Amino acid sequence: MTEHAPVVFERPVRIRFAHCDPAGIVFFPQYLTLTNALVEDWFTDSLGIDYAHMIGQRRVGLPIVKLECEFARPSRMGETISLALSLVRIGRRSLDIRIVGRGSDGVRFAANQVLVTMSLDTGESIGVPDDIRAALTHAAAHPIHPEHEGTTP
Amino acid sequence: MTEHAPVVFERPVRIRFAHCDPAGIVFFPQYLTLTNALVEDWFTDSLGIDYAHMIGQRRVGLPIVKLECEFARPSRMGETISLALSLVRIGRRSLDIRIVGRGSDGVRFAANQVLVTMSLDTGESIGVPDDIRAALTHAAAHPIHPEHEGTTP
Amino acid sequence: MTEHAPVVFERPVRIRFAHCDPAGIVFFPQYLTLTNALVEDWFTDSLGIDYAHMIGQRRVGLPIVKLECEFARPSRMGETISLALSLVRIGRRSLDIRIVGRGSDGVRFAANQVLVTMSLDTGESIGVPDDIRAALTHAAAHPIHPEHEGTTP
Amino acid sequence: MTEHAPVVFERPVRIRFAHCDPAGIVFFPQYLTLTNALVEDWFTDSLGIDYAHMIGQRRVGLPIVKLECEFARPSRMGETISLALSLVRIGRRSLDIRIVGRGSDGVRFAANQVLVTMSLDTGESIGVPDDIRAALTHAAAHPIHPEHEGTTP
Repeated sequence: MTEHAPVVFERPVRIRFAHCDPAGIVFFPQYLTLTNALVEDWFTDSLGIDYAHMIGQRRVGLPIVKLECEFARPSRMGETISLALSLVRIGRRSLDIRIVGRGSDGVRFAANQVLVTMSLDTGESIGVPDDIRAALTHAAAHPIHPEHEGTTP
Repeated sequence: MTEHAPVVFERPVRIRFAHCDPAGIVFFPQYLTLTNALVEDWFTDSLGIDYAHMIGQRRVGLPIVKLECEFARPSRMGETISLALSLVRIGRRSLDIRIVGRGSDGVRFAANQVLVTMSLDTGESIGVPDDIRAALTHAAAHPIHPEHEGTTP
Repeated sequence: MTEHAPVVFERPVRIRFAHCDPAGIVFFPQYLTLTNALVEDWFTDSLGIDYAHMIGQRRVGLPIVKLECEFARPSRMGETISLALSLVRIGRRSLDIRIVGRGSDGVRFAANQVLVTMSLDTGESIGVPDDIRAALTHAAAHPIHPEHEGTTP
Repeated sequence: MTEHAPVVFERPVRIRFAHCDPAGIVFFPQYLTLTNALVEDWFTDSLGIDYAHMIGQRRVGLPIVKLECEFARPSRMGETISLALSLVRIGRRSLDIRIVGRGSDGVRFAANQVLVTMSLDTGESIGVPDDIRAALTHAAAHPIHPEHEGTTP
C-alpha cells in the first residue's frame, strides 16, 4: 500500500456493552462491523452517494476482498474512539481504504481493506461507476487532515 | 403496565447494513441490541450514571428478566428511526421501561422491559442503589414529552 | 396462548465467547439469534421445508410480529443448553411457537413468538402456504415429547 | 508465514440467516465470529484445553493482534461450509494459525491470525502456558490431513 493516504473522513464512535466480550474489551469482529458503518457514513454523509440507495436500488455492492488488520491496544466499554478513514487507491473495479481507530492512548487498531464494486444482480465485479469515481476522486483531493496517516502499519 | 409513561429519553438511530437481514429489513435481535445501547446512553448522558463505570467498577448489572415486544412495521437500511424511552415503574430491585421505535410511517416496534439491579460479583439481585434511584425518580418527574406514549401495546 | 404445546423439535447449542457480554453471561439479543437459528433448523431438518430456499427462491419470509420472553437464569460461556420448540398454534397467516432454553439448573429462558408468513416481494402477509401448513400440521401431531412443556410462563 | 501448515482441526458450519446481509451473502465480520468459535472448539474438543475455563477461571485470554484475510467467493444462507484450521507457528507468547473456509466451489475465505496469550488480570502478554504449549505441540505433530493447506494466500 502507498505511504501517502491522508484522512478523508473521521467519526467518533462510542464503545458499547454489546461490542465487548467476557474479557471486557471489544470483540474484534465488532471493530469490523464498526468499519463497515464508517464506510456507510462516509458514502452517505461525505461523498454524497447514498449507501442504502446504492445497495438497495442501484444494486451496487461493495464487498471486501482483502483485509489486513492490526490490533494494538484493547478498547473498553464506555470509551469513545475516533475512526479515521483514508482513501489509499482508486482502482478500476476496486478501492483501497485504510481505517485507523484511536483512543486516548494512541492507535487501537488499523485496517487496510480492498473493496470491489460489484453488481448485486449478477454477482460480478463491475467498473467503479462514474459518479462514485468522481466523488472518490474529489475526496482524495480534499483530505480533512494534511498529514499522512495511512502508512502501512 | 401502567398507562402513564411519558418519554424521558429519546435518540435517533440510523439503520445500518449490519442490522439488516437477507430480506433487507432489520433482523429483530438487532432492535434489542439498539434498545440496550439506548439504555446505556440514557444512564450515561441523561441520568448522570456512567453505565460503563456502573458495570465495570461498581459491578452493578442491569440484566433483563422480562421482555414483551411487538414488531409493527419493518425498518430498512439507511433509515433513521427515533427511539423513545419511558420509565414505567421504579421497583425495589427493578425498573420497568418501555421503548418505542418510530419511523416516518409510525411505530416500528415497541418493547416493554423489566430490568433488575444485580450484583455482578454475587449474581444476586440487589436493591436499586440510592443514587440510581434518585436519578430515576428525578427523570420520572421530568419527562421530555408531556403526552403519554408508554401505554401497553 | 394455549396450555398444550408439546415439544416438536429440540437441539443442543453451545454458548460461545461471542454470545457473552462483559458480565460473562449471554447477552440477551444473542438468545434471540439462537432461537432464529433453531427455527431454521426445525424447518430444514425436521419439517422438510428448506428454510434458505423458502426465503431466497420462494421469497416467503417468516418475520416475527410478537415476542414475549422471560429470562430466568443466566447462561455462561462453554455451557451447552437445550433449546426445545413447541408449536402452539397454526393460524391462517401465522404460527405461534414457544422456545424454552434449559441448562443443568433448569429453565434459562422461554420465548413465545408469533411469526407471520409474508411475501418478501410485496411485503404483505400471505396465507401459510399449503406445503408448509401440511408440514406444520404433521409436526403438531407428532411431538417428540409427550409431556406438555409449552405452558405460558 | 511458513508454507507448511497441515490442518489440525476441521468443522462444518451452516450459514445462517443471521450471518447474511441485505446482499444475501455472509457479512464478513460474521466469518470472523465463526473463526473465533472454531478456535474455541479446537481448544475444547481437540486440544483438551477447556476454552471457557481458560478464559473464566484461569484468566488466560487469547486476543488477536494480527489478521490477514482474503474473501474469495461469497457464501449464502443455508450452505454448509467447512472450516479447516492449521497451526502455523507456536511462538513464545503467541501462536499463528490459518483458517480456510471452503464450499462446494472451492475456497470462500482464508484468514491468517496471530493470537497472543494474555493475562486477563493484568492485561499483559504472558508466555504460552506449559499445558497449552504441550497440547499445541502435540497437535502440530498430528495433523488430520497430510497435505499442506496452510500456504500463505
